Amino acid sequence: MSVDKKSRVPFYAQLIDIIIDKISTGELKEYDRLPSERELCDMYGISRTTIRQAMIELENEGYIYKEHGKGTFVAPQTYTQSLRKVYSFSEEMKKLGKKPVSDVISFNIVQASSKVARRLELEEEEEVYEIIRLRLADDEPIMYETTYLPGQLFPGLTKRELETNTMYDLLRSKYKTSISHAQERFKAVSVSAKEASYLHEKEGAPAMEIERIASAGDRPIEYTTTVARGNKYVYTIELS
Amino acid sequence: MSVDKKSRVPFYAQLIDIIIDKISTGELKEYDRLPSERELCDMYGISRTTIRQAMIELENEGYIYKEHGKGTFVAPQTYTQSLRKVYSFSEEMKKLGKKPVSDVISFNIVQASSKVARRLELEEEEEVYEIIRLRLADDEPIMYETTYLPGQLFPGLTKRELETNTMYDLLRSKYKTSISHAQERFKAVSVSAKEASYLHEKEGAPAMEIERIASAGDRPIEYTTTVARGNKYVYTIELS
Repeated sequence: MSVDKKSRVPFYAQLIDIIIDKISTGELKEYDRLPSERELCDMYGISRTTIRQAMIELENEGYIYKEHGKGTFVAPQTYTQSLRKVYSFSEEMKKLGKKPVSDVISFNIVQASSKVARRLELEEEEEVYEIIRLRLADDEPIMYETTYLPGQLFPGLTKRELETNTMYDLLRSKYKTSISHAQERFKAVSVSAKEASYLHEKEGAPAMEIERIASAGDRPIEYTTTVARGNKYVYTIELS
Repeated sequence: MSVDKKSRVPFYAQLIDIIIDKISTGELKEYDRLPSERELCDMYGISRTTIRQAMIELENEGYIYKEHGKGTFVAPQTYTQSLRKVYSFSEEMKKLGKKPVSDVISFNIVQASSKVARRLELEEEEEVYEIIRLRLADDEPIMYETTYLPGQLFPGLTKRELETNTMYDLLRSKYKTSISHAQERFKAVSVSAKEASYLHEKEGAPAMEIERIASAGDRPIEYTTTVARGNKYVYTIELS
């Protein structure tokens, strides 16, 4: 791939296309360092001004980022989640050809706190499963999730089952329960030290916190708080 | 208001209700320091353990926050925006009895960058209005917004008009143009130094970045990037 000097497409726009192409084919991978401006001048036989114009544009578009004194790097890949209907991390990752993995960090039966009880419309101190999971895509940690399920509705749920099935598949197959709708709340937060260590992030990095209350008919059956890495996830919606 | 020692409602739950009540009536305002645990013991004649239980719950629910070595404070008020249909900051704030103000920080006619051109389906370098506004509710800064409008569609738009009308009202009344639908992208980010100074936040604080492309029929007519303070704004959605 090279810049076509006879084309009517401006050189900087051609260079942008070349770089986007290298990223999308995987020749350039996330966090890879780009050649320096001088190296790019030599590689493509175009001026430094043109290189800079392309770099500014690529940075504005989120394809690359600069680190002062270190160089220019390919930005981490982001996932886009459309908020049209109830979605599942596992299903979405499969669609993208990624291997979804859920590490069950902890699995306990606890008494519902008043917060959890209110969300799940339970009496305070009723038993609930408290399940903390790290969600990964192709071995990269993406989300830190804390889920509460009413104990009474799902007797005999085991950690092992959750490690080998998606949660929604399990609720469907073992308990004949399907999510009919869900309510979500989105908030920008900073990751805590604990979340940061699981997510391979710096403490204080931006993250999306999503609170989900999912119901089967009139009955709330799942309360989950997700912390998704800010540089990994974008949520989209159509409003009319 | 005091704790009713004869009631069957646990003391800590009564204390929670008392404090929530003081916050919602405005007797306790955001960032106000709460009395110390010892002072609360004396005020309500209940044990320190009970006070602590109530404080943990109030903190979990987001009503208060602790600052190490400084005490416990009333959390800043948050706004909840439902993502059901196209919404307007001004309209939403009026519904809540808040006075919405838009400070026009800058108002320029510029050539569309390739990013803006792509979003608005324009030719590169066509003229667009670039409008940077700080949105406030009752004098408190909430959002930092950068809007692009195609110049050709809205000839003669002035800074002064934007200072005295809501943008959507203006597009409707002066240009007979109404938004029919919009697409939004939500991402968690950290506020930049510049945004922080306008938003009265610390640089690096979490914020929600919302990219909106709003259309009238098939025609995209507005491209806005909003940075909303993370501790001020929550977005909710119903999924089915």
